[in-house]
Amino acid sequence: MIEKLALIGIGLIGSSIARGVRARGLARTIAISTRKKDTLAEAEALGLGDIYTLDAAEAVRNADLVILCTPVGAYEAVMDQIAPALAPGAILSDVGSVKGHVHQALKPKIPQGVHFIPGHPLAGTEHSGPAAGFAELFENRWCVLTPDADADPQAVEKLTAFWQGLGANVETMDPTHHDLVLAITSHVPHLVAYNIVGTVADLEAHTQSEVIKFSASGFRDFTRIAASDPVMWRDVFLTNRDAVLEMLGRFLEDLSVLQRAVRIGDGPALEDLFTRTRAIRRSIIEAGQETDAPDFGRHGASPKK
Amino acid sequence: MIEKLALIGIGLIGSSIARGVRARGLARTIAISTRKKDTLAEAEALGLGDIYTLDAAEAVRNADLVILCTPVGAYEAVMDQIAPALAPGAILSDVGSVKGHVHQALKPKIPQGVHFIPGHPLAGTEHSGPAAGFAELFENRWCVLTPDADADPQAVEKLTAFWQGLGANVETMDPTHHDLVLAITSHVPHLVAYNIVGTVADLEAHTQSEVIKFSASGFRDFTRIAASDPVMWRDVFLTNRDAVLEMLGRFLEDLSVLQRAVRIGDGPALEDLFTRTRAIRRSIIEAGQETDAPDFGRHGASPKK
Repeated sequence: MIEKLALIGIGLIGSSIARGVRARGLARTIAISTRKKDTLAEAEALGLGDIYTLDAAEAVRNADLVILCTPVGAYEAVMDQIAPALAPGAILSDVGSVKGHVHQALKPKIPQGVHFIPGHPLAGTEHSGPAAGFAELFENRWCVLTPDADADPQAVEKLTAFWQGLGANVETMDPTHHDLVLAITSHVPHLVAYNIVGTVADLEAHTQSEVIKFSASGFRDFTRIAASDPVMWRDVFLTNRDAVLEMLGRFLEDLSVLQRAVRIGDGPALEDLFTRTRAIRRSIIEAGQETDAPDFGRHGASPKK
Repeated sequence: MIEKLALIGIGLIGSSIARGVRARGLARTIAISTRKKDTLAEAEALGLGDIYTLDAAEAVRNADLVILCTPVGAYEAVMDQIAPALAPGAILSDVGSVKGHVHQALKPKIPQGVHFIPGHPLAGTEHSGPAAGFAELFENRWCVLTPDADADPQAVEKLTAFWQGLGANVETMDPTHHDLVLAITSHVPHLVAYNIVGTVADLEAHTQSEVIKFSASGFRDFTRIAASDPVMWRDVFLTNRDAVLEMLGRFLEDLSVLQRAVRIGDGPALEDLFTRTRAIRRSIIEAGQETDAPDFGRHGASPKK
């Protein structure tokens, strides 16, 4: 049980934490702080917390758990504000999609006695803002924690129990390895999706209108991925540059080989790749990360068999 | 009303046509032919038709509508078999994802008096085979017909009514333009999805197992796209090479710019692209090709708000 939870930032993830904590009684008091007046008013209208303030330092005062839920690029400025107000023994965590940068940028700013345990819930939708959140977002999803080797085990345990309380499965991981794994599972796919939708945005008007009209499975799925929060994703690419460029490099090498196979009409090479990729899909389904139900990219369009 | 419908090939699309035709009473007799004994036996066990034969020529005899539902690469061999048996006045169509090649390859083989009207229903799932089909697959989806300028209007009308009977919205289009639009909406996205899943398949074992375990939105969606039928997709890239290379070229140009923005840390450029792409998504939702409900890539995981 948390006495006072402080959420700095109240978008999709922050508001989902607030709702989940409220629904499951995981904290006595929820303090919400955000930089924009309108967003704070929206959070208050939705009844997401108990305390609403534009002053992040006030929100974290006496909090035993503080979670940064802003885009990663805002962390350092937030830390400068809240550091003097953090209570000794408090846990400071976050929900950012990159972890190496967060360790490097924040560690020098953490006051003595505060437990710094970065985290990343692997959950989300393409929608943003306080109204987009919901209490069940983390159910059965992974939450990766990246504590330093010398982190306090009791604090790690407390944060683990908090995320388990929200329904998540918790794992700890090295921050650099986290960033490499996420670069290929999430960051490069998003970059590619944003890119292809951008290519369409630059098409001549007539073709573009037909692309939209006839957007088939494939492109339509990419547009969903490419509808995610622009500032959050900007910060991901600014702060996980090395891992993204490494994985993008491998992707581009492979794409050159594939492009050549298309150009020279190498049917066996194409069929071989297209067959191998099915095995990866099966592994993901077996790992419980996905169901085998056919998906049309359109809710409510499931077949009645 | 069709007297005798002949389906050559009985995978996801062919079997969905058979089920839809049966459910809505669109044809008196359904003849099914396929090259593989096992597939034919499976279709028969599923009760998809009235006549089952390994001899495509027998299936098309006296048929007033013949639809090729095999991978595009098999069309020419099938045509050599069926051409002598096609009835004068019959409509010959198909469901292939490329249309320019189909016109070029088959037109010289079409007997006098047979109406050749290629088609492409923009529908499908990542599953394959006769058991994967269902009667509702085409409901509210586009079916694009690409008749020649001198095609018989009555035959086009009859085929249009047939697809409308299956619940589809029908449009006619120039085959070359169809191939260009589909290259960017479907073919290049599939190529990119296959490629990124292939990159993961080549990762060192430890990282790969974590990628599978933590496969987040993004990669998980790509694996679904990359689980589609390998032979069908091989043939798409072998037969729509020019349009695919044209669109892939544009995609790669744009990706180089984006890669550079990541490398030099150009935040404004990244944010600008990630904001522009949202507008395309909105257009697709407004065009009714997609709903705005958040999607998790997992059926049954929709939030109760």
